[in-house]
Amino acid sequence: MSKKNMDKLVIFALGGVGEIGKNMYVIQYANDIVVVDAGLKFPDEDMLGIDIVIPDIGYLLENRDKVRGIVLTHGHEDHIGGLPYVLKQLNVPVYGTRLTLGLVEAKLKEANLLGETKRIVFTPDSELKLGAIKATFFRTNHSIPDSVGVCLETPEGLVVHTGDFKFDQTPVNGQFADLYRMAEIGNRGVLALLSDSTNSEKPGYTGSEKSVGANLEVIFRESTQRVVVATFASNIHRIQQVVDACTASNRKLVVTGRSMINVVTIASELGYLDIPEGMVIEPEELNKLAADRVAILSTGSQGEPMSALTRMARSTHRKVDILPGDTVIIAATPIPGNEKFVGRTVDELFRIGANVIYGPGSVSGVHVSGHGSQEELKLMLNLIKPKYFIPIHGEYRMLRQHSNLAVSVGVDRDNIFILDNGDTVEIQGGEARKGLRVPTGNVLIDGLGVGDVGNIVLRDRKLLSQDGILVVVVTLSKQDSKIMSGPDIISRGFVYVRESEGLLDEANRIVTNTLVKLMNEKVNEWASLKTGVRDALGRFLYEQTRRRPMILPIIMEV
Amino acid sequence: MSKKNMDKLVIFALGGVGEIGKNMYVIQYANDIVVVDAGLKFPDEDMLGIDIVIPDIGYLLENRDKVRGIVLTHGHEDHIGGLPYVLKQLNVPVYGTRLTLGLVEAKLKEANLLGETKRIVFTPDSELKLGAIKATFFRTNHSIPDSVGVCLETPEGLVVHTGDFKFDQTPVNGQFADLYRMAEIGNRGVLALLSDSTNSEKPGYTGSEKSVGANLEVIFRESTQRVVVATFASNIHRIQQVVDACTASNRKLVVTGRSMINVVTIASELGYLDIPEGMVIEPEELNKLAADRVAILSTGSQGEPMSALTRMARSTHRKVDILPGDTVIIAATPIPGNEKFVGRTVDELFRIGANVIYGPGSVSGVHVSGHGSQEELKLMLNLIKPKYFIPIHGEYRMLRQHSNLAVSVGVDRDNIFILDNGDTVEIQGGEARKGLRVPTGNVLIDGLGVGDVGNIVLRDRKLLSQDGILVVVVTLSKQDSKIMSGPDIISRGFVYVRESEGLLDEANRIVTNTLVKLMNEKVNEWASLKTGVRDALGRFLYEQTRRRPMILPIIMEV
Repeated sequence: MSKKNMDKLVIFALGGVGEIGKNMYVIQYANDIVVVDAGLKFPDEDMLGIDIVIPDIGYLLENRDKVRGIVLTHGHEDHIGGLPYVLKQLNVPVYGTRLTLGLVEAKLKEANLLGETKRIVFTPDSELKLGAIKATFFRTNHSIPDSVGVCLETPEGLVVHTGDFKFDQTPVNGQFADLYRMAEIGNRGVLALLSDSTNSEKPGYTGSEKSVGANLEVIFRESTQRVVVATFASNIHRIQQVVDACTASNRKLVVTGRSMINVVTIASELGYLDIPEGMVIEPEELNKLAADRVAILSTGSQGEPMSALTRMARSTHRKVDILPGDTVIIAATPIPGNEKFVGRTVDELFRIGANVIYGPGSVSGVHVSGHGSQEELKLMLNLIKPKYFIPIHGEYRMLRQHSNLAVSVGVDRDNIFILDNGDTVEIQGGEARKGLRVPTGNVLIDGLGVGDVGNIVLRDRKLLSQDGILVVVVTLSKQDSKIMSGPDIISRGFVYVRESEGLLDEANRIVTNTLVKLMNEKVNEWASLKTGVRDALGRFLYEQTRRRPMILPIIMEV
Repeated sequence: MSKKNMDKLVIFALGGVGEIGKNMYVIQYANDIVVVDAGLKFPDEDMLGIDIVIPDIGYLLENRDKVRGIVLTHGHEDHIGGLPYVLKQLNVPVYGTRLTLGLVEAKLKEANLLGETKRIVFTPDSELKLGAIKATFFRTNHSIPDSVGVCLETPEGLVVHTGDFKFDQTPVNGQFADLYRMAEIGNRGVLALLSDSTNSEKPGYTGSEKSVGANLEVIFRESTQRVVVATFASNIHRIQQVVDACTASNRKLVVTGRSMINVVTIASELGYLDIPEGMVIEPEELNKLAADRVAILSTGSQGEPMSALTRMARSTHRKVDILPGDTVIIAATPIPGNEKFVGRTVDELFRIGANVIYGPGSVSGVHVSGHGSQEELKLMLNLIKPKYFIPIHGEYRMLRQHSNLAVSVGVDRDNIFILDNGDTVEIQGGEARKGLRVPTGNVLIDGLGVGDVGNIVLRDRKLLSQDGILVVVVTLSKQDSKIMSGPDIISRGFVYVRESEGLLDEANRIVTNTLVKLMNEKVNEWASLKTGVRDALGRFLYEQTRRRPMILPIIMEV
């Protein structure tokens, strides 16, 4: 490849377009690669038994000498959760703001990667040299402090990546989005903008986090018993407002749930949470205080089965009970797929007799999104004024809605690239076009296994989950074509065996007849005998039950 | 039991309280039982492989001589879908309005039950004598025509069951809710009201179906290509408005999807749909007409994988293609749990290049709920003015919200009964109290099996779905405590076998060692040998993989 061909700008996603989560974007100019974020996502409902999903970083491993580092926009799992897996294979420097790196370090410590990982803190005012690419930043608003957008200055032009953002005109921590810097970048001329599409389907503006604080305070003051608040552990603005509501209502605070304790500890140490001395008490002290003098901050806003709130709702939490008349605030919107879990938790809390405040933020008043709605996305486009636009972070429909917004503010539709993971945009001499695809995809993590569960295993799990399995064991003597013992049929997940003896006896006869018939016809290869058993038994069982269990014939030979 | 004790009114649910679907309510006075509705529900996500769920009608079977009939409020699956299963065990008369029975008859024909089932049509003006209980009716508005509330006159007093309802002040078919009759019943004095809680979490009023029609007409007129509308097959008002929009925009209509064709046929025959002669064309004629002269009415508004819309979106529909520039209207809200399916269908439609109108009715303008919101539920309470109130149709939290609404309009909180299925309310001498529980629960239907899949089978399916199964086969000679052949390990849904040979070889050694060790220790019972293998192998695999596959040891003896 000639030098001329090499010197182009290439932009693509290894994760995070056409999906929610596992965000990972690659900006390459010649021999310099900058990676933005390294997230994870939670499995789709067809990925049975899978714990988490990360991007396939094969391209980065093949080009490991060119990777200058991973720049993190903020500390959410869908942006940093893949780091332990990535760094194990690709030891490159990690750049992040102070809080982001604080959260990353806890993660790396757990994975025994802290010592060997180079970590570089930056501020929104920093400049980083990443080979031929210079990175600068601008402060944004999001549901976690210290979130930034990234401006990558390449020889080909400026590339801006917004990270996750909203425009909160009254931020809880007084850290305003840096409108001036965004406008100034826009004024310099931006070649390409990659912008957050999460809420591109939502008309209007997203509410200010501060509106939640005002409502929390009223609830805390008016409740005559305990108040429990469940929210995302990483939403430090929200946690600060819970602390403030405790101050206003003269309550002590119990923090429960592993990730909540973890984040509160880190954020307090780093100065991102301002908790009055003596406010936080241990769960053991809860019963010593009057019910209207305490509040509880908890995980479980998604109804996760093992979370602190779910355990409280089921009265299986070892230290915290919820009593009739207590108020429980679920300060979050269910992530799609979690609606039923949240609903069940609310049901159980109501059964206990709690007063539950839940539902969409517009009804409950105790939640706002961390992502900008349509008017905010347009504002970002109008500030940055990019030549090329690449909507990121979201399902295909969200990318599509975002591109319609871009057209509405004047971006040329031909200059918008809706990508799938692995699709590349190449820019050379100011002209962009779709380039060759980079191989990527989902890497499934199941227990300790990284990528060892693929389509075959998942297909089998799906089959097993629907109608179970029948194992048919038989010992044959091939010499004299006789059944020596069996067939024995063992089933799991198919029918309740004690009530299906007739069916299973008949199944047994069918296996025997099939084998005898085949052996009489001198069919002796095991594979053919197994296929014969599988077909005959499958047909019989489907006729009788309209079910298609997996059938596993095992032939032993003596 | 003395005569005095017998002569009381008993009210309970066999399905439909604390859950959505499989609605079935029982009102008993002495020796007369009236059943209201016989619905099904779709399985929860933990009911792996289950097709549908119906109520356990053991109580009715035990008291079959007392059951005077099943009165249907309307023709939705969650109110009539259980009938074929119920009638197979309990041959009692079925009462319904004309459309409701039309839909029931199609169902009974399929189940070969039409001939033996006594079906009695009633109108909102009918009076039915059901033993000592007299049934009268009042017309309501809902997302299917011919919906009624039921008033049961018992010697103990009036019991009113609303069915599903909203108050639509501008109904599409001009059939207004019978406010006078509801008020008149209320004026006579109602002992107990059972009222629909589905939308009790929603503030305000539900929009009129007519608002959808106006928006459909604009979209149909302005689209320059084909328009596809996906909605619930049973929403005949909506279908009528699609027909009207076709008339207004001079389009022919293709109907696709089995249940849509079925309902359109029945509703047209019975006069509930008014379709101009020649408007409906066969899919084969589609390509003969200009794109702006046709529309398509389809199932699949829930993103169901096998539905007509999903097949069109994936370009696997045999007869209908969606082309770039076509407009697709998803005129429904995803049922909780279906959000992801609908999202994927929208993604695929956008990928084709269609213009997709979707999302919450408040944004899309092409959907309204069939259930009344909080103000309408209060209106019903104020019309009927019951002494006792039993919220029905809904998860526990919805029942609870509905009871709060009842209190807000003056119902005594002590007179409200939030029941679980099987909980009874007994009323005698005007006084109500909780009675003994009636046994009931979910009957799971999997293929042809009714109730043969229980907790053990479901637990196995869950285990199998998470980490798969390992079958370990070994032939032993007990006489000389020797392994004659094997162990062979066959796995499904556990790991990708070709890449895990080392692991499986090691597993093999562990099984061998365990068996040899146990047999040396003179442990010879199969059960103990199996347990030994299961424990040792399970421990090893968990250490190596952090997975817990089901382990099925099979020992053959020679």
